[in-house]
Amino acid sequence: MSSSDIFIGETIGTAVLILLGGGVCAAVTLKRSKARNAGWLAITFGWGFAVLTGAYLAGGVSGAHLNPAVTLGLAIQGGTAWGDVPLYLGSQLLGAMIGAVLVYAVYYGQFHAHLTDPEIVGTKSTDEGMVDQTAAPKAGPVLGIFSTGPEIRNGVQNVVTEVIATVVLVLAILTQGLNAEGNGLGVLGALVTALVVVGIGLSLGGPTGYAINPVRDLGPRIVHAVLPLPNKGGSDWGYAWVPIVGPLIGGALAGGLYNLAFA
Amino acid sequence: MSSSDIFIGETIGTAVLILLGGGVCAAVTLKRSKARNAGWLAITFGWGFAVLTGAYLAGGVSGAHLNPAVTLGLAIQGGTAWGDVPLYLGSQLLGAMIGAVLVYAVYYGQFHAHLTDPEIVGTKSTDEGMVDQTAAPKAGPVLGIFSTGPEIRNGVQNVVTEVIATVVLVLAILTQGLNAEGNGLGVLGALVTALVVVGIGLSLGGPTGYAINPVRDLGPRIVHAVLPLPNKGGSDWGYAWVPIVGPLIGGALAGGLYNLAFA
Amino acid sequence: MSSSDIFIGETIGTAVLILLGGGVCAAVTLKRSKARNAGWLAITFGWGFAVLTGAYLAGGVSGAHLNPAVTLGLAIQGGTAWGDVPLYLGSQLLGAMIGAVLVYAVYYGQFHAHLTDPEIVGTKSTDEGMVDQTAAPKAGPVLGIFSTGPEIRNGVQNVVTEVIATVVLVLAILTQGLNAEGNGLGVLGALVTALVVVGIGLSLGGPTGYAINPVRDLGPRIVHAVLPLPNKGGSDWGYAWVPIVGPLIGGALAGGLYNLAFA
Amino acid sequence: MSSSDIFIGETIGTAVLILLGGGVCAAVTLKRSKARNAGWLAITFGWGFAVLTGAYLAGGVSGAHLNPAVTLGLAIQGGTAWGDVPLYLGSQLLGAMIGAVLVYAVYYGQFHAHLTDPEIVGTKSTDEGMVDQTAAPKAGPVLGIFSTGPEIRNGVQNVVTEVIATVVLVLAILTQGLNAEGNGLGVLGALVTALVVVGIGLSLGGPTGYAINPVRDLGPRIVHAVLPLPNKGGSDWGYAWVPIVGPLIGGALAGGLYNLAFA
Repeated sequence: MSSSDIFIGETIGTAVLILLGGGVCAAVTLKRSKARNAGWLAITFGWGFAVLTGAYLAGGVSGAHLNPAVTLGLAIQGGTAWGDVPLYLGSQLLGAMIGAVLVYAVYYGQFHAHLTDPEIVGTKSTDEGMVDQTAAPKAGPVLGIFSTGPEIRNGVQNVVTEVIATVVLVLAILTQGLNAEGNGLGVLGALVTALVVVGIGLSLGGPTGYAINPVRDLGPRIVHAVLPLPNKGGSDWGYAWVPIVGPLIGGALAGGLYNLAFA
Repeated sequence: MSSSDIFIGETIGTAVLILLGGGVCAAVTLKRSKARNAGWLAITFGWGFAVLTGAYLAGGVSGAHLNPAVTLGLAIQGGTAWGDVPLYLGSQLLGAMIGAVLVYAVYYGQFHAHLTDPEIVGTKSTDEGMVDQTAAPKAGPVLGIFSTGPEIRNGVQNVVTEVIATVVLVLAILTQGLNAEGNGLGVLGALVTALVVVGIGLSLGGPTGYAINPVRDLGPRIVHAVLPLPNKGGSDWGYAWVPIVGPLIGGALAGGLYNLAFA
Repeated sequence: MSSSDIFIGETIGTAVLILLGGGVCAAVTLKRSKARNAGWLAITFGWGFAVLTGAYLAGGVSGAHLNPAVTLGLAIQGGTAWGDVPLYLGSQLLGAMIGAVLVYAVYYGQFHAHLTDPEIVGTKSTDEGMVDQTAAPKAGPVLGIFSTGPEIRNGVQNVVTEVIATVVLVLAILTQGLNAEGNGLGVLGALVTALVVVGIGLSLGGPTGYAINPVRDLGPRIVHAVLPLPNKGGSDWGYAWVPIVGPLIGGALAGGLYNLAFA
Repeated sequence: MSSSDIFIGETIGTAVLILLGGGVCAAVTLKRSKARNAGWLAITFGWGFAVLTGAYLAGGVSGAHLNPAVTLGLAIQGGTAWGDVPLYLGSQLLGAMIGAVLVYAVYYGQFHAHLTDPEIVGTKSTDEGMVDQTAAPKAGPVLGIFSTGPEIRNGVQNVVTEVIATVVLVLAILTQGLNAEGNGLGVLGALVTALVVVGIGLSLGGPTGYAINPVRDLGPRIVHAVLPLPNKGGSDWGYAWVPIVGPLIGGALAGGLYNLAFA
């Protein structure tokens, strides 16, 4: 696989993943969206079909990792060369940021209607740049469209949740070569992975909002910090390490478990 | 592919697409429908399975474009001859109009119960033929069953939303040849495309109702203008250009992006 | 295909279809069911996965018609011998009755809790055997678990709705041979057909509850008339012809349309 | 298939099945979960995708039974050696217990927030070890996350419901060899089985919560009895025999029916 294939596939695929994934969060959150309050099932199916679309687009180009935890697991398994890992990760982060900007473009009018509504921003936090992870959450009113956040803030607990959820995801991807589909992700593999992600969301998403992907959280959080949104509140950088560390541990554990048990 | 295959496949396939797509909007909107108020998830899955059914019916006949934006993207990519484009587009528009008439036939009793209910038509607009796109929406009480409309009316913003959503759709269709499915849409390709459309609806449908297909909006809007519905209100022609121009730009951009990045 | 294959496949497959399809109606209707009021999306997915399960079970045995309208369409198309049609139909009707009895067995406690609840049976109808189709509906409080009924009672309108919905179903089944799946229904064909049925339910089920299958309505209606349920009310025989005549016309039309346009 | 393949596949696969299946019950039940009150459709899809994920992980290793009723049916059919049955069952029970512990790890904070909330534990039962099956249910406030329980407690009725639901599941798995997928479960077989489980949940889950798998109920019930949860209430051992006996009878009946009708 050439470097340009990796760059193109991962950047475009991750951009579409975050465009659709962040998009469904915008759709159910923002005022004057037709999908407002469509519920948790809409969010989890929305993220699942975001994975499907991104994986389908990039599958034949870069293998559609779209997630540093997947890349790490595949490198440990031996399916991806370690030398390609930095390019995968950089392209994924770039794609995630592009995707978050596209969400803003799609929901531009809704973002501004929402953030200038007195009912919604009346309780806004102005403590940007908060770094104390044990403090009460001070997330802005639209940060949840960009990044994940915990319902109960406890670094260790939140990391454990993300680790377990990511092991499930990456192990499913690593073992698919054992199934009848042959090499590569393939269309059916992309579909099953997408439904596994719906399942992880439904089942394990309750405590932390299931990042299970470092760039899915970090890329949009950077964009939230930079975008000139009125009354946007803080970007909750104190939590940002959890959805990076948890998924990376999970991806590594899945790679190790695969080599131990399935290889 | 013969001209009669294109005509038959696109007309019947698009008619079924609009019958089921418009049908779910009727189902959740009209009084005395068992599905009334079934919610956004029902609408998005309904449109997705409408795509599945139409694509499944027409896939082996005409390739199941069912959408001028798809035809345009395929022509730019080189998968469809430019000389066939007018026949594709004409058949699609004809099919969309037939589909909208069939929705009326299926929900005949419900349309009349709804449009003669004093609670619903008490605030009806009588300003038919409105052409000022910046004016407040004056859509009739059942226009949303036929055509799309924005939550926040702003031509440029609405076009941007439709462009981005259509790029995702058409790019997914164009790149499927890179996946393991080989030539043509195929059953699995139809299924994935349908779920991608559910995803686009959930994630990007909030601002404009995701036309992502010029004839999906124009065909039923013409039918709305012509049908002898009591108290139907205006057909909102002032907005009709957005779901034509946006998807066509999106289809062309997707074709160009494919040739640049994936070919 | 041997007679015993047809008998076994159609009887067991249709029994499972009605067990799961009637089951979801019981699940969302009856008191003391965990699924009570789970909504229209649950009903439509429930029926779709009922089709999937029945078709999956019977696909390799009898071809999994499970529906006289499908058998009729296939006979007109030439895929099923006319001489086999009576056996298909008889087995389907038998299977549908068995399925309805199994629904009663699964929900036995719930049926009796529901039908002895004063709030629910306080307004019960005692006019059993009603045959005037223009009269107001007098369906008993659990008839909807067995058979379909219209929201607006009008024989011609209701037949039109059933005809159009059935044409979509049968045409989708007839054209699948044109897709890449080769002969027989196949697993992927069963899956797509199931999702098409979800789509028909979401989009076209609002007016009549989408029988789209004569035995799906008639078999359980007979069982409702016979079962010793307390306070069960009438079986609404005045409507029973609609979900027989409509789907049979639809199946025949689909067969004719296939031969005209797709063959 | 080697003993170590059976042990690894069934233990890990069943652990993931229960992690995601129990997880969705935790997600919709517990306070301070983002998915709280997401509804029956979320629960049924969550369990379905739990089956998908577990079957996908273990399919290429152990054949992914994940359920003693499936193992029993396959042994009767002849697809699994009787000598392997004890290892399958033991691994499944171990996996189910591991999965239930992992649910606790993922939702640790939510469990403690829920079980120390005065509104929720104000009516807690202290009658642990209850064995009278005819007594009113005394399930603790989080037992439903671990094990199933009936809406109407009647041993015979509850067994009948579990038997019928399990026959549908196991018969679908046994007959898939008759379909086009060839040997083994395969990816498409895992997907269809998962959707069949969603269907069984939607349609037949209302009375008892559809264990349809002895270890799915017993493993987590043991964990519930052992875990040091505050105010957890009883483990309802009086009901524990139903979701063991019912599914085992169902699996055996499905195996016999297969040999009689389909072989």
